Amino acid sequence: MIVDRVSLSDVLVAQKRVKGFVLNTPLAKSYWLSDVSKAEVWMKLENLQNTGSFKLRGALNALSWAREKRLIKVYSASVGNHALGLAQASLFTEREVTICIPETVSAAKAKKLDRYSVGIIRHGDDPEETERYARRLADEKKGFYVSPYNNPEVICGQGTMALEMFERVPKLSTIVLSVGGGGLAAGVATVAKAINPNCRIVGVVAANSPTMQTAVQKGRIAPIVTSPTLADGIAGNVEAETITFPLVRELVDEWVQVDEAEIASTIFEFLENEGMLIEGAAACAVAAVSKKIINFKPREKVAVVICGGNIARDSWREVVVDHLVGASKA
Amino acid sequence: MIVDRVSLSDVLVAQKRVKGFVLNTPLAKSYWLSDVSKAEVWMKLENLQNTGSFKLRGALNALSWAREKRLIKVYSASVGNHALGLAQASLFTEREVTICIPETVSAAKAKKLDRYSVGIIRHGDDPEETERYARRLADEKKGFYVSPYNNPEVICGQGTMALEMFERVPKLSTIVLSVGGGGLAAGVATVAKAINPNCRIVGVVAANSPTMQTAVQKGRIAPIVTSPTLADGIAGNVEAETITFPLVRELVDEWVQVDEAEIASTIFEFLENEGMLIEGAAACAVAAVSKKIINFKPREKVAVVICGGNIARDSWREVVVDHLVGASKA
Repeated sequence: MIVDRVSLSDVLVAQKRVKGFVLNTPLAKSYWLSDVSKAEVWMKLENLQNTGSFKLRGALNALSWAREKRLIKVYSASVGNHALGLAQASLFTEREVTICIPETVSAAKAKKLDRYSVGIIRHGDDPEETERYARRLADEKKGFYVSPYNNPEVICGQGTMALEMFERVPKLSTIVLSVGGGGLAAGVATVAKAINPNCRIVGVVAANSPTMQTAVQKGRIAPIVTSPTLADGIAGNVEAETITFPLVRELVDEWVQVDEAEIASTIFEFLENEGMLIEGAAACAVAAVSKKIINFKPREKVAVVICGGNIARDSWREVVVDHLVGASKA
Repeated sequence: MIVDRVSLSDVLVAQKRVKGFVLNTPLAKSYWLSDVSKAEVWMKLENLQNTGSFKLRGALNALSWAREKRLIKVYSASVGNHALGLAQASLFTEREVTICIPETVSAAKAKKLDRYSVGIIRHGDDPEETERYARRLADEKKGFYVSPYNNPEVICGQGTMALEMFERVPKLSTIVLSVGGGGLAAGVATVAKAINPNCRIVGVVAANSPTMQTAVQKGRIAPIVTSPTLADGIAGNVEAETITFPLVRELVDEWVQVDEAEIASTIFEFLENEGMLIEGAAACAVAAVSKKIINFKPREKVAVVICGGNIARDSWREVVVDHLVGASKA
């Protein structure tokens, strides 16, 4: 085992904790992506998860664990979806939650956070800077810090979606997912490899912020220069000592980069073909299939994780207008 | 019992037949509609059903019944969603299905139908005209005719969604749904009233084609003059002797009309607030809530049936462009 407390049995414990509070979201066949790839492509629709992203799974497992350990005060940092997950999870677990978010967090996510009675502190421009601040705050206040990815319970919570995926389509042979801090990849890959060691895991990053792919290539996490990306949910640097790194290095079989134009056109094409708005991070995984960047065996069973739907209003409006009336714009 | 073979127990039989082949679609809370209405509003997301609409439920129950009766040749008529439901259901039931569709059926639906090996005959401009032709064809060929609404098994199949809704939120006190031929309304209301006789059923029609509401007001079905509507799935006249009429007259408590501008803006607002494209028929039920046409008790539990997502590409593009860049158009 690479990391203690991250194994199939730990994910099964997580599943018991979160059951009834997280949705078993649909694993829906995509005729569009199947036609394009000649594979049989299924979409795990975590954009339909409560709070609009998969992050509720890890957040709830971590807060449930904190309750078992009688840890009352919880601190965290997030660019949005993990914050929403924690805020929702706090309703079920009665923890006192304070979340640090970057100044740059989208208005859509900030507005959704307003519905909850969690403490919100705005600090920093880069996710990693906000995380450092939140960790320090947790230390000072003797609170429990829940990283959005660097935490075994968070990783195992995210892994619960893979149990649902294999239950619905047992013979999955490839899973495609977007990678930011690596919590999703580590959790899902842990389950997938335990169920079928030959299941291929493809990690997708935004070309403007290929943090984890670069780290795997270099053999260690080192700060990289990133540019803004539509895939805000997987952007920015990550903690140097994150436990997701050895897991992701071991378990992710292939890496793919997608650029901003591909992310934008995929947001539009997903709306056109699947009738749903998804956020940039989710579009990365889709683009890796729809743009034919990944090779598939004919009719192999593929799952693409649609990690979230919390796209900023301005972002999707711009993408849609560009595609519908782009040519006629000045 | 108003109509033989349409009772809660018949719906339970239907549920046994369709289980495993139709999705138990999410019943998702709408913060948007809850905020607007001050009620607790849940959306039954049948736009995520296989084939993109609830019609699979009734079609599959009817074809399963036909298989039990050893009826091999099946004829039907449809404006699109029922045809898709039958085509999908024919895969599981091995019936020989021929479907008549109006010349006017949307390209999006026709294209989806191409995936299946069912016979397609284009005939007529009005749904009721196409239905008359299909019935005659079934008579001539000694086939079994499955109306999209005027059939007890179709009605009971549609009713299965209400079992799922009450299982998820037992204390529903109002259900809002769009009414065309009345199959959805009859099936859902039969279940709802059996579970809770005080559950209020609100039927919504397009002002351009208020067929069933007009029939209930007049006490009988008589042809009315209809205009084109974005809600193509519930447009047009219906069979004079349909068994849905006495059911709908008895079980629908209130009627609401929505006009074309309301349908269009609701398609856009649903996309903005819920991140999904829905078809005009579904937008009718949503508009009845979002436009504050229905009165609710504070925090009463309301379900809105999102009946389908098969909107024509040109329709949604026009709606979205109008809303995003409408002011700047010539």
